[in-house]
Amino acid sequence: MTQTNSRVSIVGAGPGDPELLTMKAWRAIKTADVILYDALVSDEILQIAPENALKIYVGKRSSDHAFSQDEINEMIVSHALIYGHAVRLKGGDPFVFGRGGEEMDYARKSGLEVEIIPGISSSIGVPGRVGIPVTHRGLSESFWVVTATDKNGNLAKDIQKAAETDATVVVLMGLGKLDEIVDLYAKQGKEDLPVAIIQNGTLANQKVVIGSIADIYHTSKNEKMSAPVVIIIGEVVRLYQPSELIKEYQTVLA
Amino acid sequence: MTQTNSRVSIVGAGPGDPELLTMKAWRAIKTADVILYDALVSDEILQIAPENALKIYVGKRSSDHAFSQDEINEMIVSHALIYGHAVRLKGGDPFVFGRGGEEMDYARKSGLEVEIIPGISSSIGVPGRVGIPVTHRGLSESFWVVTATDKNGNLAKDIQKAAETDATVVVLMGLGKLDEIVDLYAKQGKEDLPVAIIQNGTLANQKVVIGSIADIYHTSKNEKMSAPVVIIIGEVVRLYQPSELIKEYQTVLA
Repeated sequence: MTQTNSRVSIVGAGPGDPELLTMKAWRAIKTADVILYDALVSDEILQIAPENALKIYVGKRSSDHAFSQDEINEMIVSHALIYGHAVRLKGGDPFVFGRGGEEMDYARKSGLEVEIIPGISSSIGVPGRVGIPVTHRGLSESFWVVTATDKNGNLAKDIQKAAETDATVVVLMGLGKLDEIVDLYAKQGKEDLPVAIIQNGTLANQKVVIGSIADIYHTSKNEKMSAPVVIIIGEVVRLYQPSELIKEYQTVLA
Repeated sequence: MTQTNSRVSIVGAGPGDPELLTMKAWRAIKTADVILYDALVSDEILQIAPENALKIYVGKRSSDHAFSQDEINEMIVSHALIYGHAVRLKGGDPFVFGRGGEEMDYARKSGLEVEIIPGISSSIGVPGRVGIPVTHRGLSESFWVVTATDKNGNLAKDIQKAAETDATVVVLMGLGKLDEIVDLYAKQGKEDLPVAIIQNGTLANQKVVIGSIADIYHTSKNEKMSAPVVIIIGEVVRLYQPSELIKEYQTVLA
């Protein structure tokens, strides 16, 4: 039983708030025959899908690997062949540490048409939503988005270089390496550089802590921050103010 | 005549394709009393606004400055005070070289409530839409988004550092400095590093040229590429393939 209209859409669901979905993503979900989704995709977004669409959770959380990447690649293809329009729905943007490129590559090599639908990346949208601009005239001329660990679980080498620059540095999946990250910056004499950590960004249970390289590690421990978080390091963090619109949701350390 | 419901939304309209607007941006535009918009915002998006909403073009193109940034800041505030909900609508994401931070700052200091609505940044969404992932396991562990010129019109120093790293480098507003940029990379012995230049990204008249540090400058001249473009430098460019879905729109040099 193979469909003639088999195709794959690799879709970014944005950072969490369902309203940060794009209209193009909405339309893809609305026409899905099967959805393969991650841990970071909200129920509200899944409910956009047709009632008879198959919804399969393929998410991975740090130590609880539901499926390997190879298995996910294969599931995307096999489900598109069986059901028709397979939507691979991923938190944030599918190409920002999302392994969307591997999924695209595999599906294409299997002969399927693949459409990429970008999403609001947490790296920009999560700080942006609370008024932290990744670039700001006079404070930051660029931003560098890194992950904390390389594929072997060690501290990524790009973050070591990033600590030496004046770029705003946004770290994804970095909470477990926060002690090593602040050490890197401290060695550059940047103890006073401000840092923001945002958990559940853009969601009702969003939590923001603000500190400096010198104190953010202890502050985040005291505040019991838990992964996943977005970490923003740079002078732009000084622009943070709790917004009237979302203050009620936030725990803020000034 | 001052409104009691005066407020400001600083909204990212995304890279061009109206369907890449978020639902939150759509709702903000739908409830606007006045819209102050940029050159890179499409007519389709402006048509979302209520018919009686005032629409004011405040865009700047390289040599044709319609309004200074100070004037724009003041217009946002004065129009919010007079009309109510002022939507500042900007191409891409408002905080990625958009000077949205300055507008937020000014409006807040004027006592107005400001909401930030992130947009799909061209830096991620434009390459993403054509299948170029900014990160990809084995090819790139991070990406660095830079602009080519500093506020004095010189080559930005961050791009000089970026050329020394293995990060995917995305350059916005860089076409006028392309010769200097490729020189930086060539000095690092990176003549073979692939480069993509995308003009009118995500739009029907999108144009993509692919080359290497050694030849991209001449290729882009031959192809008469014109600003604004997104420039992507890094091994990830090798994943580019013209998509079946958008091939008809593209001029591609393999």
